[in-house]
Amino acid sequence: MEDLSKRVLAGEIRAASRLIRNLEDEIPDTYLAMRDIFTVASHSHVIGITGAPGSGKSTLIDELITAYRYNKKTIGVLAVDPTSPFSGGAILGDRIRMLRHSEDEGVFVRSMATKGSLGGLSKAVGEGIHVMEALDKDRIIVETCGVGQQEVDIINHAHTVVVVLVPGMGDEIQAIKAGLMEIADIFVINKADRDGSAKLYRELLNIVDMSKRNGLNGENGWTIPILQVGSVLHHQEFAKSVELMRDNIDQHYQYLFESHLLAERKRRKAKAELNEALWGKIFEPVLNELKKHGEMDTMIDQLVTREMDPYTLAEKVAQRYMKK
Amino acid sequence: MEDLSKRVLAGEIRAASRLIRNLEDEIPDTYLAMRDIFTVASHSHVIGITGAPGSGKSTLIDELITAYRYNKKTIGVLAVDPTSPFSGGAILGDRIRMLRHSEDEGVFVRSMATKGSLGGLSKAVGEGIHVMEALDKDRIIVETCGVGQQEVDIINHAHTVVVVLVPGMGDEIQAIKAGLMEIADIFVINKADRDGSAKLYRELLNIVDMSKRNGLNGENGWTIPILQVGSVLHHQEFAKSVELMRDNIDQHYQYLFESHLLAERKRRKAKAELNEALWGKIFEPVLNELKKHGEMDTMIDQLVTREMDPYTLAEKVAQRYMKK
Repeated sequence: MEDLSKRVLAGEIRAASRLIRNLEDEIPDTYLAMRDIFTVASHSHVIGITGAPGSGKSTLIDELITAYRYNKKTIGVLAVDPTSPFSGGAILGDRIRMLRHSEDEGVFVRSMATKGSLGGLSKAVGEGIHVMEALDKDRIIVETCGVGQQEVDIINHAHTVVVVLVPGMGDEIQAIKAGLMEIADIFVINKADRDGSAKLYRELLNIVDMSKRNGLNGENGWTIPILQVGSVLHHQEFAKSVELMRDNIDQHYQYLFESHLLAERKRRKAKAELNEALWGKIFEPVLNELKKHGEMDTMIDQLVTREMDPYTLAEKVAQRYMKK
Repeated sequence: MEDLSKRVLAGEIRAASRLIRNLEDEIPDTYLAMRDIFTVASHSHVIGITGAPGSGKSTLIDELITAYRYNKKTIGVLAVDPTSPFSGGAILGDRIRMLRHSEDEGVFVRSMATKGSLGGLSKAVGEGIHVMEALDKDRIIVETCGVGQQEVDIINHAHTVVVVLVPGMGDEIQAIKAGLMEIADIFVINKADRDGSAKLYRELLNIVDMSKRNGLNGENGWTIPILQVGSVLHHQEFAKSVELMRDNIDQHYQYLFESHLLAERKRRKAKAELNEALWGKIFEPVLNELKKHGEMDTMIDQLVTREMDPYTLAEKVAQRYMKK
C-alpha cells in the first residue's frame, strides 16, 4: 500500500487510478497510502462545478478542459455520479464525451460513485482530490449532480464553486436551488440561447445583489459574475464563452489568494477531513462492534417494544467504550 | 423537566408545546423528560407529506385535517421549515391557512426549524413525533419541504410517505425528484387541472411500474396509487379528492399492519433514533472537548500546512478518549 503512494508521487497514472478506486471501494488499508499523499504540498486550484442533471455540465467541462489545455494547464477531473436507478444511466452517456481528451497525458478523468453513505462519498471525493494534487495537476475539476446536502458537503472541498443553470425551469426549481445559490462563486447560464434566459439572468442578478447585501462571499470582495454560455451548435461562440468562464474561474482564485479567503477555504476543507477521520476512528468502530454481536438489533427491538429509551441505551454504550 | 413529561402524558397542550420548543432549541436536559415520553406505547399513524416548495402541501394538509376530523380522528401536525433566506418567508405565509383549525382541540399544529445541523433537525422531528404520540393523536402529519438527504432522513420517521407533485415543472425537476420517488407510498398530483397533468400522470405511472419491477415497496404488496387533486377554487371537488387521499393513506396503514412491513418501518425509525442517541453520547462529546480547548483549531492548522494527515490525528484522539 505504501508502495502505491510512492508510485503516485512519481506521477504514475495507473497507481493513481488504483488508489482512487480503493478510496471509492473503502478498502480498509488505503489510509496507509493516503498518509503520504495527504502531506504533499499542493498548488492545485480545486474547482467545483455543480447544477441539476441535464444542465449540460459534462459538455461544459469538456470544453473547459480544452480551454485550460490551450493555456498549458494540466487538469484532473473527478466526476461524482448519483447512483439513483432513475438518473444513473443518462448521465453516464454524457460522460463519454470527455473521451476526446483520453489521449491527452495532461488530462486525468475519473468518476466516483457512492457505494455506502453520502458522507462516505464526500470523504472519498476529498481524498480523490488529494491524489490529483499529488499528481501535481494545475486545476482539479469536481463535477457533482443534483442538489441537496451531498453537494454542499462535496463543495467543502472546492476553492471555487461554479453553479450551472439552464433557462426555462420555472420558479419552483429556483426555490429548490436556493441551497446551491448560497454557495456559488460564479453563475453560468448554460444553453443561454433558449427561451427564458433573460428572465433567469434577472433572477440571478437579484440573488447576487441579495448575497452582496447579506455579506456572503466576502464583505468587500467578490461580485459573483453571471456568465452566459450559448448552444453547442454554434461551436465557436460556445468555445469563446467557455474561455471567458475559464478566465473568471482563474480570477476568482486570484481574488481568494489576495484576500484572506483562500486560507479560510483551505481550513474549511481541512475541518471536513478531520471530522471524517474522527468519525472513522471513534464513532464507526463502536457502531461496527455493536453490529458484530447482534447487539444493535437487540437494542432496536427494545426501542420498538418501548421497553427502553434511546438515551439510556446510548449511555450504557458510552460507559463501555469511552474513557472517564 | 420530568414534571414536563407527566404534564404531556396528562394531555396538557402547553407542556407539549414547551417540550417541542425545547427539542428544537436542543436544551440539554430535555432528554430527562423525553425518557418517559419514549417508552409510552403508541397507536398513532405517522404520515410524511413531502414535495417541492410551491406544490401546495400546506393547503392540502389543511383540507386533510378537515377530512380526518370528519372521521373523528385527532391530529398532530409537525411542519418542518427550511431556513434558507430565499424560501423561508414565502412558506411561512402558507402556513397561516392552518389557523382555521386553531380553535379545534382535536388538532395540534407545531412547526420546527433547523438551528444547527440537518441531522439535528431529523433527531428533533423524530422526538417531536414521540411527543405527539404521547398526546395520543390518531394521525401525525409531518410536512417537509424541498428535496435531498434531509427529507430522506426525516421520512425515516414516517409510516406512510405521500409525495406531492404539480404539473408543468419540466423534465429536469423529475430527475431531481428521483430521490423522493423512491420513498413514495402514495403520489398526489396537486393542481391537476393545470397543463401538463396528463404528462405527469404518465411519468408517474412509469415510475410506479418500475418500482414494482424492482420489488420496492414490498414484493407482492402495495401498488402506489397516483391521486389527482384539483384546484382549491372548485372547493367541493377539492374536498372530495382529499377525502380519497385520506382513505388511501388509511388503506396504506392497513396494508402495513397486515403485512410484516409496519414492524419493519418501526425498526427503521428505532434504528435512526438509536444512531442519533449514540452520536450524541459518543461522538459529539469528543468533538466538544476538542473544540473547548482550541485543540481542534490546532489540528486544522496542522492539516492546512500539511504537517500532519487526518488519520494520524484521529488515531491520537481515539487513543485518548476510547477504551482498549
